Amino acid sequence: MRQLFAFMLCFPLLVQAQVNQDSIQLKKMSDEILTNGKAYDLLRELTKKIGGRLAGSPQQQNAAIWGKRNMDALQADKVYFQPCKTPAWQRGGKDFAAIVGVNGVATNTPLAALALGNSLGSNGLIEAEVLAVANFDELEKRKDEVKGKIVYYHSVFDATKVQTFKAYGESGIYRGSGASRAAKYGAVGVMIHSLSTAPDNAPHTGGMRYDDAYPKIPAVALGPNDAKALYAMTKKSTVRAQMQTYGFFLSDADENNVVAELKGSTYPDEIITIGGHLDSWDVNEGAHDDGAGVVQTMEVLRTMKALHYQPKHTIRFVLFANEENGGRGGAKYAELAKLNKEKHIFALESDEGGFTPRSIGITSSEAQFKRFEKWSALLKPFGTEITSGGGGADIGPLVGYDKSIILSSLIPDSQRYFDLHHAKTDVFENVNKRELLLGAVNIAAIIYLVDQYGVNP
Amino acid sequence: MRQLFAFMLCFPLLVQAQVNQDSIQLKKMSDEILTNGKAYDLLRELTKKIGGRLAGSPQQQNAAIWGKRNMDALQADKVYFQPCKTPAWQRGGKDFAAIVGVNGVATNTPLAALALGNSLGSNGLIEAEVLAVANFDELEKRKDEVKGKIVYYHSVFDATKVQTFKAYGESGIYRGSGASRAAKYGAVGVMIHSLSTAPDNAPHTGGMRYDDAYPKIPAVALGPNDAKALYAMTKKSTVRAQMQTYGFFLSDADENNVVAELKGSTYPDEIITIGGHLDSWDVNEGAHDDGAGVVQTMEVLRTMKALHYQPKHTIRFVLFANEENGGRGGAKYAELAKLNKEKHIFALESDEGGFTPRSIGITSSEAQFKRFEKWSALLKPFGTEITSGGGGADIGPLVGYDKSIILSSLIPDSQRYFDLHHAKTDVFENVNKRELLLGAVNIAAIIYLVDQYGVNP
Repeated sequence: MRQLFAFMLCFPLLVQAQVNQDSIQLKKMSDEILTNGKAYDLLRELTKKIGGRLAGSPQQQNAAIWGKRNMDALQADKVYFQPCKTPAWQRGGKDFAAIVGVNGVATNTPLAALALGNSLGSNGLIEAEVLAVANFDELEKRKDEVKGKIVYYHSVFDATKVQTFKAYGESGIYRGSGASRAAKYGAVGVMIHSLSTAPDNAPHTGGMRYDDAYPKIPAVALGPNDAKALYAMTKKSTVRAQMQTYGFFLSDADENNVVAELKGSTYPDEIITIGGHLDSWDVNEGAHDDGAGVVQTMEVLRTMKALHYQPKHTIRFVLFANEENGGRGGAKYAELAKLNKEKHIFALESDEGGFTPRSIGITSSEAQFKRFEKWSALLKPFGTEITSGGGGADIGPLVGYDKSIILSSLIPDSQRYFDLHHAKTDVFENVNKRELLLGAVNIAAIIYLVDQYGVNP
Repeated sequence: MRQLFAFMLCFPLLVQAQVNQDSIQLKKMSDEILTNGKAYDLLRELTKKIGGRLAGSPQQQNAAIWGKRNMDALQADKVYFQPCKTPAWQRGGKDFAAIVGVNGVATNTPLAALALGNSLGSNGLIEAEVLAVANFDELEKRKDEVKGKIVYYHSVFDATKVQTFKAYGESGIYRGSGASRAAKYGAVGVMIHSLSTAPDNAPHTGGMRYDDAYPKIPAVALGPNDAKALYAMTKKSTVRAQMQTYGFFLSDADENNVVAELKGSTYPDEIITIGGHLDSWDVNEGAHDDGAGVVQTMEVLRTMKALHYQPKHTIRFVLFANEENGGRGGAKYAELAKLNKEKHIFALESDEGGFTPRSIGITSSEAQFKRFEKWSALLKPFGTEITSGGGGADIGPLVGYDKSIILSSLIPDSQRYFDLHHAKTDVFENVNKRELLLGAVNIAAIIYLVDQYGVNP
């Protein structure tokens, strides 16, 4: 009885001491990042000196060299390339779309337009009547009207979704498969409403994928204002439109994932991964998508070195080669993990923009999640908490190799992301230094906790 | 026993039904605001057509007329002016500061500078040696060196504070009372490091107050880069500087609080107040500070009318006349509340910028707070929760009249506010539509809950 009593007295004290020590370490990392952080300067270099960096472009090659050089300078234990073939889609020219006839009367109203990534060129100017549909249901109902037309999908963002990624998911299916779904019924071209929340007319590009069973027709995203005007017009009138795009593929390019490692002192064979993707679309600087994730990854490495932190597990800092239009970087990383029989315990991705972090998302077993949730109190001073559901396109393939790997993501505030995502406005000037650094603070915090205590309850 | 059992069964169901009904109403308001919200358009008008609106300026007069006209158009039950005298501080000219000598060698390095609001002009160009101090402690230690000098306070923001308002509070005392503290020992002028988190050199103005016991010496805020360079220089060299400012007061101006009311159906004599302040500094458009609070207030009124919401309590929508350099708008509102023996139960202010809302701050008794806290679950889908501590400069005076009034504030993410607060960058372009509207959503939510259930457990 007396022993139990003593135990009950001591145990909370031990736990409390532990929590205090962790709080101190987290604060130390936060202070280092918020005071001496280099992420913002690195992002300026990546966006302004290198610029947009679509996989297969010279800029993407430069970005990998830049990433390796900078991580070398941070004195990681090991820095290396993981060679990786990527698609080399080329926009090929200045995309064009216009309304050229209303109820048989010629007109000439240009539409702000960007070809969707991976879409093939129109082979000259095409002109056809526009069939505007609200969604795939309407397309199916009106499939007999599709032949020979340009199909417009009114894939407007649902403004009522507070979590904007939900609205993105719903509208995103039209960007991804809208072209082939319409080509199946004989459409000659496809237009979509840009996946945008911005009160402006900038068109947003983004990846699409053809179904090889159907003709590969051209596809563009229209600026939101033009898209809405077109949609309204089709409700009252017969509208004819023209479009011309130039997309094509060069043969696959030789790119590289850039990997830096801090070797674990206790569990060198158990790997924790942090990463973001180096590639971006061609029309912007890829500042939020995903320059932010890249420089936050480098910032965590810098901070651990600056504070002489010696991890227990091996920590990998990965700049993925190709996420936007192929996901080949992440696929290669998982393929090599499998080939080398690596043991991965935890992988975190930052690819939702460099905005104020709101939570660390976790995908794990229920028992593991309960343990993670207890860390919310430690994260709270830095503005986040543990929430259910994490992962990302670059780390996702790891699960195909080992289902026990815990996937995680930095989840920033989502209100502004789709204003600029894949649009020309995703530039350095739209990234805030403190928000960007605070993301790195929270990544460093969760990585520290996982490194100290592992992933199991 | 049977009765108790039945009661236990029913009670959670009733509570659940209530919660569901509230969730539905909150979602309805949120959808209305995120879909049809006019706050962003109103903010464009206020900032672009009217512009900066310091109390006593013609712009501020126009802003009050604009506010009344728009709230009339929203068909509140009553819309009226509350006349109110305000200070009429004038900047008077283009503020100037420069380094003109280093170790006796003449130089000419201009410094980005803005006179502090309420500071008086320098009466011509003044030139003196700079005494740079880290803080008031150092000033006191070196008080014998102050006479005849320009005192520079290195009131740099503490970047490690995740809650930026904490850092603002700490550095803000130098802006508020630095001039008189230095004048006490014979300083001829004062410079401070701008209260800024931005990685730029824009100077930030803001209110100061003289202690009538000492000479009223001129005071400027320097751009962050210039301030840091000056401070570093004084560590190695004797630095001479010049400054010239032009501030003066016209006699007090006749301004107005603008008040709209929805009359309560059940408790017409119990008043709930929502508000923001119409005035801004002269150097910007006052978009976040506090155009955002003004148009969010109007948006809540618009939404209640659009949804035909009939409040139980009387709800007041108040655009305060003067917060920045006098607080006379809030003082007048409280004075009239006392005079008219009004019963106020709850007042909420939005004056921390139009950024993504993080919480609703509440200052109340512990028992009341516990009841408020239960509403966190209802607010969560809209991104906020109830946190302890709320209020603001405009509603604060109500407590002097009745200590039982609950004060509340919309607490948005604070990372970006001090990048632009009181600087020329506080313009419409730096406000995000969704973030602004989401603030109004959360104000509408808490006001609805208070109106339905009152403030007592």
